[in-house]
Amino acid sequence: MTKKITSREQDYSQWYNDIVQGADLAENSGVRGCMVIKPYGYAIWEKMQAELDRMFKETGHQNAYFPIFIPKSYLSKEADHIEGFAKECAVVTHYRLKNADDGSGIVIDPSAKLEEELIVRPTSETIIWDTYRKWIQSYRDLPILVNQWANVVRWEMRTRLFLRTAEFLWQEGHTAHATEKEAIAETKQMIDVYAEFAQNFMAMPVIKGLKSEQERFAGADKTFCIEALMQDGKALQAGTSHFLGQNFAKAFDVKFTTKEGKQEYVWATSWGVSTRLMGALVMTHSDDRGLVLPPKLAPYQIVIVPIYKGEKQLQEISVIAFKVKKLLEKKGIAVKFDDRDTHKPGWKFAEYELKGVPLRLALGPRDIENGTIEVSRRDTLEKETCQMIGVEDKMVHLLEEIQDNLYKRALDLRENKTFRVDSKDDFIKLIKQGGFVYAHWDGTSDTEDLIKKQTKATIRCIPFEQQKEPGICLFTGKPSIQRVVFAKSY
Amino acid sequence: MTKKITSREQDYSQWYNDIVQGADLAENSGVRGCMVIKPYGYAIWEKMQAELDRMFKETGHQNAYFPIFIPKSYLSKEADHIEGFAKECAVVTHYRLKNADDGSGIVIDPSAKLEEELIVRPTSETIIWDTYRKWIQSYRDLPILVNQWANVVRWEMRTRLFLRTAEFLWQEGHTAHATEKEAIAETKQMIDVYAEFAQNFMAMPVIKGLKSEQERFAGADKTFCIEALMQDGKALQAGTSHFLGQNFAKAFDVKFTTKEGKQEYVWATSWGVSTRLMGALVMTHSDDRGLVLPPKLAPYQIVIVPIYKGEKQLQEISVIAFKVKKLLEKKGIAVKFDDRDTHKPGWKFAEYELKGVPLRLALGPRDIENGTIEVSRRDTLEKETCQMIGVEDKMVHLLEEIQDNLYKRALDLRENKTFRVDSKDDFIKLIKQGGFVYAHWDGTSDTEDLIKKQTKATIRCIPFEQQKEPGICLFTGKPSIQRVVFAKSY
Repeated sequence: MTKKITSREQDYSQWYNDIVQGADLAENSGVRGCMVIKPYGYAIWEKMQAELDRMFKETGHQNAYFPIFIPKSYLSKEADHIEGFAKECAVVTHYRLKNADDGSGIVIDPSAKLEEELIVRPTSETIIWDTYRKWIQSYRDLPILVNQWANVVRWEMRTRLFLRTAEFLWQEGHTAHATEKEAIAETKQMIDVYAEFAQNFMAMPVIKGLKSEQERFAGADKTFCIEALMQDGKALQAGTSHFLGQNFAKAFDVKFTTKEGKQEYVWATSWGVSTRLMGALVMTHSDDRGLVLPPKLAPYQIVIVPIYKGEKQLQEISVIAFKVKKLLEKKGIAVKFDDRDTHKPGWKFAEYELKGVPLRLALGPRDIENGTIEVSRRDTLEKETCQMIGVEDKMVHLLEEIQDNLYKRALDLRENKTFRVDSKDDFIKLIKQGGFVYAHWDGTSDTEDLIKKQTKATIRCIPFEQQKEPGICLFTGKPSIQRVVFAKSY
Repeated sequence: MTKKITSREQDYSQWYNDIVQGADLAENSGVRGCMVIKPYGYAIWEKMQAELDRMFKETGHQNAYFPIFIPKSYLSKEADHIEGFAKECAVVTHYRLKNADDGSGIVIDPSAKLEEELIVRPTSETIIWDTYRKWIQSYRDLPILVNQWANVVRWEMRTRLFLRTAEFLWQEGHTAHATEKEAIAETKQMIDVYAEFAQNFMAMPVIKGLKSEQERFAGADKTFCIEALMQDGKALQAGTSHFLGQNFAKAFDVKFTTKEGKQEYVWATSWGVSTRLMGALVMTHSDDRGLVLPPKLAPYQIVIVPIYKGEKQLQEISVIAFKVKKLLEKKGIAVKFDDRDTHKPGWKFAEYELKGVPLRLALGPRDIENGTIEVSRRDTLEKETCQMIGVEDKMVHLLEEIQDNLYKRALDLRENKTFRVDSKDDFIKLIKQGGFVYAHWDGTSDTEDLIKKQTKATIRCIPFEQQKEPGICLFTGKPSIQRVVFAKSY
């Protein structure tokens, strides 16, 4: 019954798949590139959603819902946008099936061909700005601060559970503003919200920065991002916030009357995070024994396992276990008491270790006698026997400690793989080895391409938080005004 | 600025559209048949979701997520199912667009044709049972109690906001059981959950019952439903719960090993409610002035409007208004204080009336002097001046009263339009007039067809809660074992 996890050293990619599937987070479906998110994985995603949704609402946003289909002509209206998204989209061409005339089964009804093809949304800027045109007349109608929780489809050829799937779940914020300044402030605010979420809830340190022109969202003037470093030294883009300028307002003719009575185009932003965060979460904390979850996102933070022989012992232990459960729940802790008699304690221990439950409590007959309980931490794998009295306060404290410890551990790991490099040879060597490499770059796309071709590294971002320090581009010798962050990435 | 609402008497259908659009619930999009759910409408849907989700979890269900696409061959596996859904589905045939060779724009890339067409899910039984085959081996794996919140697409030709749209949002529960008995119990439990939600939260009385064979879900052995009566005397199916027997288990070869070591097919249920409930909510309570919301589903339950001249008065009133707001929020009431100086009080009064906010508080300078506040009920349109002291308890009480009153009013309306009929002439007359007609029917689909053809009435359900009373079918004179509920319907 125990599922085998490949070690990271042996095969990092297989390790990731083993955890995602072994811990019941997700699996591949019968539809190429589309995943099934299993209940345990979805429960983590729901926790993420709840926190993000709260943060969006606290910053003044409301949710809404826009159609899943985008007429082909809409997608074409913004030139860069169509370039970026046409290559990988699901196209609806017909609206009916029928029985084949030759009895061979069900076929498309050719008489039900759509006049204009519909694209399953890869992102919703176009359909939303087509709608905003109706919503916006005057400065009084601005700002519009709207978010949508939705599924989107991008026809990826090589897919990996959570990290790159044809269909994924996400949220996409789409805001409309009267001024450029306000729109840029919104773009920044939302990347800050994402960074706060990543750090405080996912326990995942991130670098905030600006994308290079090349890595920018198709249709944006500026893309801000948060970048995290995975255990294999590869970077993962965990969230993006785009300043769209007036590009979509112009493409969809969305103007407003200013206080002074002038007609102006509206300024826009969009920002999103997706189920990709689930992949980031797995790769940031997990170990060779399975998933490790930060307490703030764990569907249950504590599991209680009874150790018993026979029905009578189970009953005695259950009485105490339910008391402990209640005490813990009063403190706001999510607790599961696993009293199934279909599985042995050892099996349960392995199962909850694999599923990353932050704390495991074991209760045996001797514990009942002594008024003790055995506590095991998932992050450090440490065990200790505690007095039952005051256990609830201790657990609250321990969960906080685990949350902090996971962040610190991830930060250490990142710092140990972060390098400032001043020679091309070192650059090539360290990129190969894996990690964030801060290096000078001459600011041109040509050089970016060259570096990518030679090393597979991309510019993850031009980080916000660093002193500007002039230097020399490692690949062209041309002047550089600041270091940027390079890495190989997911 | 005031939006005009057509009266119900003048044009019921236009009245409905005026409210849905005037109250900012939803609007048509640029995509045929697909709606945009606006922030205010979506906030109501979020409240519905939150309550339903809580009820599902309390009855042991977990959420998960399955692919939006269904391979054509899956849909075909259950014979009745494909019959029911093939006629109205969105078919994805290609996965890429490209620039036309003649420079005429973006066209489908013919080289990116899918080997097998994908259907945008109209419902997910097939893809889910294809997945359950991998999840279920033994009786230990059962029951599976899973729900999904998702968007679905059915290519409707004539669409109406919320009531019938090509894309809609819903939840679909899909459960798997070891025994027929357990599956039937689940089917019943979920129709009870829906009825409880409709009555306690939507303040909408419903009849629970069994669908006739003809009105049954495509692929089900039995369909239970809740049926509500709208103000125009038409019925609206508000939720369904299906006992699927072993149909999908057989179609997808899902067997399990029983405790005794035998191989058996799994028993299934599915159940769902959708954004259609938004339409039901609108039509159950609203009046010619606009939307009327039950307090339990109102995004804000109370709005406070200041009546003032000049900045100084507004400041004085605001101090008190914020105090009141805090007091109310402490009681768990959702409050909005509308201190915008861009709109006059009269405009705000009309706006919140149109949007159905259950209680409106107005605060003017005289109120401040006297320690009073003006309270207006949206349901009865009554106004009274109250003492400020203890206003929070009064409001808690009033909101409960409004919730109850709306239910009673809707129940009265339904009872006034509910008839027991024993002659064909009365039947025809009353169906024409509108309402639920309890009448005898011989139990055959032929007669059901005949009645539908002659009167446009369908059997809404065979109600659970009634005494079995034999009689004579009104249309054929054949024996009937019980009355069934007829009505014209949405």
